[in-house]
Amino acid sequence: MTRTVVSSRAREVAIGPDLPFVMIGERINPTGRKLLAAEMREGDYHRVEADALAQVAAGAHMLDVNAGIPLADEPAILAEVIQLVQSVVDVPLAIDSSIVEALEAGLSVYKGKALVNSVTGEEERLERVLPLVAEHGAAVVAISNDESGISEDPDVRFEVAAKIVRRAADYGIPPEDVVVDPLVMPIGALRYAGVQVFQILGRLRDELGVNSTCGASNISFGLPNRHGINSAFLSMAIASGLTSAITNPLEKEIVHSIKAADVLSGNDRDCAAWIRTFRAPAAVSRGRRRTRRRRAGAGG
Amino acid sequence: MTRTVVSSRAREVAIGPDLPFVMIGERINPTGRKLLAAEMREGDYHRVEADALAQVAAGAHMLDVNAGIPLADEPAILAEVIQLVQSVVDVPLAIDSSIVEALEAGLSVYKGKALVNSVTGEEERLERVLPLVAEHGAAVVAISNDESGISEDPDVRFEVAAKIVRRAADYGIPPEDVVVDPLVMPIGALRYAGVQVFQILGRLRDELGVNSTCGASNISFGLPNRHGINSAFLSMAIASGLTSAITNPLEKEIVHSIKAADVLSGNDRDCAAWIRTFRAPAAVSRGRRRTRRRRAGAGG
Repeated sequence: MTRTVVSSRAREVAIGPDLPFVMIGERINPTGRKLLAAEMREGDYHRVEADALAQVAAGAHMLDVNAGIPLADEPAILAEVIQLVQSVVDVPLAIDSSIVEALEAGLSVYKGKALVNSVTGEEERLERVLPLVAEHGAAVVAISNDESGISEDPDVRFEVAAKIVRRAADYGIPPEDVVVDPLVMPIGALRYAGVQVFQILGRLRDELGVNSTCGASNISFGLPNRHGINSAFLSMAIASGLTSAITNPLEKEIVHSIKAADVLSGNDRDCAAWIRTFRAPAAVSRGRRRTRRRRAGAGG
Repeated sequence: MTRTVVSSRAREVAIGPDLPFVMIGERINPTGRKLLAAEMREGDYHRVEADALAQVAAGAHMLDVNAGIPLADEPAILAEVIQLVQSVVDVPLAIDSSIVEALEAGLSVYKGKALVNSVTGEEERLERVLPLVAEHGAAVVAISNDESGISEDPDVRFEVAAKIVRRAADYGIPPEDVVVDPLVMPIGALRYAGVQVFQILGRLRDELGVNSTCGASNISFGLPNRHGINSAFLSMAIASGLTSAITNPLEKEIVHSIKAADVLSGNDRDCAAWIRTFRAPAAVSRGRRRTRRRRAGAGG
């Protein structure tokens, strides 16, 4: 079974079809978060720190870190944010930028084996990002679009993914260090956006033998009850072969849906994590109450 | 695409991979419901009637009707209950019994094309149930076990299903009138119960070209937060090919999960049902309020 291993200074995380699903926290990203963007531009990272801690506390196995702020010095900010995040949490990071210099700056300060997010099938990106990934011994997210855009044909998107895997191998990056993002489009605009992704995921697992990830929240863009669509999408994508996702671990529905999918994939042995999650709270609160009473008794 | 069409007196329901998922209400079943069993034995069907109405109101497309009460006259009770249910709701029914005489009694009073639940791969069952199904022009649920029990090998269960489809054809029952139940076992006891079912469902769709159903709630037997497991299971099973399920439409999580899966399968055109479900309540209540005000104004 394919295993993508990434690491922080002290911790390894493995992604694989026979392992619990890897949840990559999406919150540290100024896109669409005006306040966060303004703060990050000024070098105020208190919200970044809070987001890092909250996401890991909520169960994120990795964090995505993006500093894409228009007209800001993205490489410098990304490097600072990565150092900060690595100082407060010990999960591995995905270094997320569309600017190669920012990826480079991030990689240069990163401790451990990072996931570089991302390379596409565009020739210019392949030639600039892959050597960087190889040089730092990192893993990389491969997004299945190229110069011609995002195809609505799942076979074309699969072929772009296969091409990136081949090109990565040319640079000495093994297939297990390429995590393919099949590109999730909004189902409200494209009726078969879900089915297309499920098909590609099956082929990535069965034919290409690589791990996969996606920005899961895109699927529900523009629809009511987005959490409902997102969590069903994740379950269905996991059934189809998805092994990690960049998503919001602060949304309970999402996390529960992923934990249930782990049980149903046979990757939560003896259902231990599920039972701990849904039986523990009562036991813990009883335990706390007892402790409090005992303390009160000792004091009185 | 395979279509299984069943009907009541006045309404047809079609099951198929390119159609919205068919939810078969499971509530009219005295198994594990002592009060209902005692009432049904005495010919008191008020709870049956209430269950029929509530399930259809909650969105059930069909209802399963079972009268399996130990030491009672099951054929007579099943026939009475079917007549009663058909008099209060107009959805097609699944006539559910392990006793051939009860299936026969149910079929003899049923108006429309019923779904007979069920035949197994056991020789004696095949020879008794299939002629009955053929005679009444019904459809039938084929459960993938035989004399040797329920195999843990998905390939064996698939072969049992394939055998039932062949035997049905010998009796003039076309494959589209055989709806296969791959048998859902509790995941708490069998780690790969989910994965096995997903594999069988894929082969039923791709190789055998038949529709499928299952008793979805079995999967979570013995676990906490059963709804959480059940709804993720249904999403994953639908992604794998499941086209109907015998489940509880009164559980909102289950219904939402099925509706989301319809969207993601491309079977909820323009996401119309999803948007209606999650945008309508506010609009409806505003509408009502306005009507009430207008009436109050007219009266005052």
